[in-house]
Amino acid sequence: MFQINENYLKLPGSYLFSTIGKKVNAYAAAHPDAKIIRLGIGDVTQPLAPAIIEALHKAVDEMGAAETFRGYAPDLGYEFLRSTIAEYDYKARGCHVEADEIFISDGAKSDSGNIQEIFGTGNRIAVCDPVYPVYVDSNVMAGRTGTYDPDKETWSDVIYMPCVAENGFAPELPKETPDMIYLCFPNNPTGATITKAQLQEWVDYANKVGAVIIYDAAYEAYISEADVPHSIYECEGARTCAIELRSFSKNAGFTGVRLGFTVVPRDLKCGDVALHGLWARRHGTKFNGAPYIVQRAGEAVYSEAGKAQLKQQVAYYMNNARYILTGLREAGYTVSGGVNAPYIWLKAPKGMTSWEFFDYLLETVHVVGTPGAGFGPSGETYFRLTAFGSYENTVEAVERIKNI
Amino acid sequence: MFQINENYLKLPGSYLFSTIGKKVNAYAAAHPDAKIIRLGIGDVTQPLAPAIIEALHKAVDEMGAAETFRGYAPDLGYEFLRSTIAEYDYKARGCHVEADEIFISDGAKSDSGNIQEIFGTGNRIAVCDPVYPVYVDSNVMAGRTGTYDPDKETWSDVIYMPCVAENGFAPELPKETPDMIYLCFPNNPTGATITKAQLQEWVDYANKVGAVIIYDAAYEAYISEADVPHSIYECEGARTCAIELRSFSKNAGFTGVRLGFTVVPRDLKCGDVALHGLWARRHGTKFNGAPYIVQRAGEAVYSEAGKAQLKQQVAYYMNNARYILTGLREAGYTVSGGVNAPYIWLKAPKGMTSWEFFDYLLETVHVVGTPGAGFGPSGETYFRLTAFGSYENTVEAVERIKNI
Repeated sequence: MFQINENYLKLPGSYLFSTIGKKVNAYAAAHPDAKIIRLGIGDVTQPLAPAIIEALHKAVDEMGAAETFRGYAPDLGYEFLRSTIAEYDYKARGCHVEADEIFISDGAKSDSGNIQEIFGTGNRIAVCDPVYPVYVDSNVMAGRTGTYDPDKETWSDVIYMPCVAENGFAPELPKETPDMIYLCFPNNPTGATITKAQLQEWVDYANKVGAVIIYDAAYEAYISEADVPHSIYECEGARTCAIELRSFSKNAGFTGVRLGFTVVPRDLKCGDVALHGLWARRHGTKFNGAPYIVQRAGEAVYSEAGKAQLKQQVAYYMNNARYILTGLREAGYTVSGGVNAPYIWLKAPKGMTSWEFFDYLLETVHVVGTPGAGFGPSGETYFRLTAFGSYENTVEAVERIKNI
Repeated sequence: MFQINENYLKLPGSYLFSTIGKKVNAYAAAHPDAKIIRLGIGDVTQPLAPAIIEALHKAVDEMGAAETFRGYAPDLGYEFLRSTIAEYDYKARGCHVEADEIFISDGAKSDSGNIQEIFGTGNRIAVCDPVYPVYVDSNVMAGRTGTYDPDKETWSDVIYMPCVAENGFAPELPKETPDMIYLCFPNNPTGATITKAQLQEWVDYANKVGAVIIYDAAYEAYISEADVPHSIYECEGARTCAIELRSFSKNAGFTGVRLGFTVVPRDLKCGDVALHGLWARRHGTKFNGAPYIVQRAGEAVYSEAGKAQLKQQVAYYMNNARYILTGLREAGYTVSGGVNAPYIWLKAPKGMTSWEFFDYLLETVHVVGTPGAGFGPSGETYFRLTAFGSYENTVEAVERIKNI
């Protein structure tokens, strides 16, 4: 008789955003007149920029003509996109990343979940707490996390690095030595960032203890301050210890288009084995490339018109972020984030837990946010709002919350 | 110090089609005047059908307007596509498959590689020999295959089911009991099929011994004979033992568009645990949906115009198949397949190994095929040609081979 992967049974409940979706749908069904405003899941709302739409139409036409039709994409992505990324995301920032160290994928969520596969199951992982749930859940599925403590809501073999008000939501170097360190800056969910000097400390630490950093830079387009690194490869020594994950979802609104990439430098090795080759093998065996038309859309993100249009789109969302930040502060909430990230992280009021505050906001003012507890135990009394709504909805949501 | 997944190091060489690609590129670079005809990798060459192009343009326009923009897709796929598939691929053929048992993905290669994740690592797999390399390689990566014997080119813990001329390229029930059985009909690479009665035997066997069948039906659109099943769910009892993988790559030319789906019936259980929930959890955690525009393209495959246009496209390729089959037979080759599948399977002549024949064809007539050995030891003296080229190229390739 076949057996299942028993690790799946250890996972408590369903994926955070599925749970929220179900709760909101149930509320909406029971209260059809409630005008619900969703500032929960980190999904964008602005349409794709004209330069991207144009590139999509052009690529679709190519697929309709025999002379220009494209079948299977190169395993690791089209050269036109890989070299464009190398040029604009890395070379332009003084980072050494070669085009063939960039692996195009169908999105950073897939890469976040899949990257752990090339590592041994005995590796110890360290994560920020709170944290994007995919890092932990994908390691649970692989059997790397030990046993779950339902009271503490923690895994026995995971090293948690609390990110709380007391440390400015920046993790401290862990006391126990990890093998794989997940870092995400600008951070989801807290919206916090760290400076280049702080990130350099992590790179030095990883090189010293022989750990690999999985650096999620999905929100780098939202950085507004000068001293915040856009890539971990701005730090010296990162090529021997860091993998970087990038997304087109948030800088270009590709949540429903699906495109991302992962950088695995050739210098990153375990003994003689380069991780670059392992990830290439995974791509070649279990993936068949991102759609041609989507890769052309990704290329358009870096065109002059695309860059100008997307700068405006990011500014639009960051204007929302400022509005939420200011409005909630005026209403007496303790808030952070929202300066270099599209997320605002607030303390649930009156000693409420984060799920209590979730229900409270949904029921009293029909505003949906994300309970901090969904991101880890240190998120228990926090709550995440996103700046990805429309300006009108954002203003209305803030007014409703202020008027509670 | 972090450790890597040591299973990756067990994999001999690189993925088959990457190797072929490198060989062909090297030959082309050294012989720039050679007009190479590629009938190797199973990639289509006909442009997307007009109905699909129209659906893509329409969906792109939707993504460019605020009122119709779509962000994250539902985890498991859009309802419009899932219900269309349930209707046309299953209900219309008398199969019981619900829309919510269909999981939309970015292609059957991803699903083929990922599906093993929800199973225990102690499971014993059985595969046809020769076989699509992804089934075995993805299980090697998961540590399910034991040790590799470089002489025999087999894995110690894999049950091989030879598919050779002597058994009509149809596998026999294995002597050792497997937990997971990979079947693909119409078959890649042999182009062979089995009858509904034969498939029913497999379903009965799997239910009896408690095995799960992973049924790859990527080529069902090429079935021309009446008694060949299009879906494993045409067999009684398949809902308790079978997962079915489907692709849009071959029936609609989506190799560069990327869309597929997997059916996991709710009745398929290990004890109390439904595999449906496990696969849903994997989708929700490690995948973020296929692109909206691509799912709309998938829907257009089932429109009246789409069906008519794609029927012609399949007929075009099957005309190539007939041409190859007839031509090579006339030239004295032993050939099979090509009637219910776009693949022609031929015996390498003069006692050559399949890689010898690969080099021979490339060098003497500049025709690229796929060496049978790349699919498993029983493919050692066989060779695969595909019908996916243009008619002109197919005719020229056959003429060149006939004139050797």
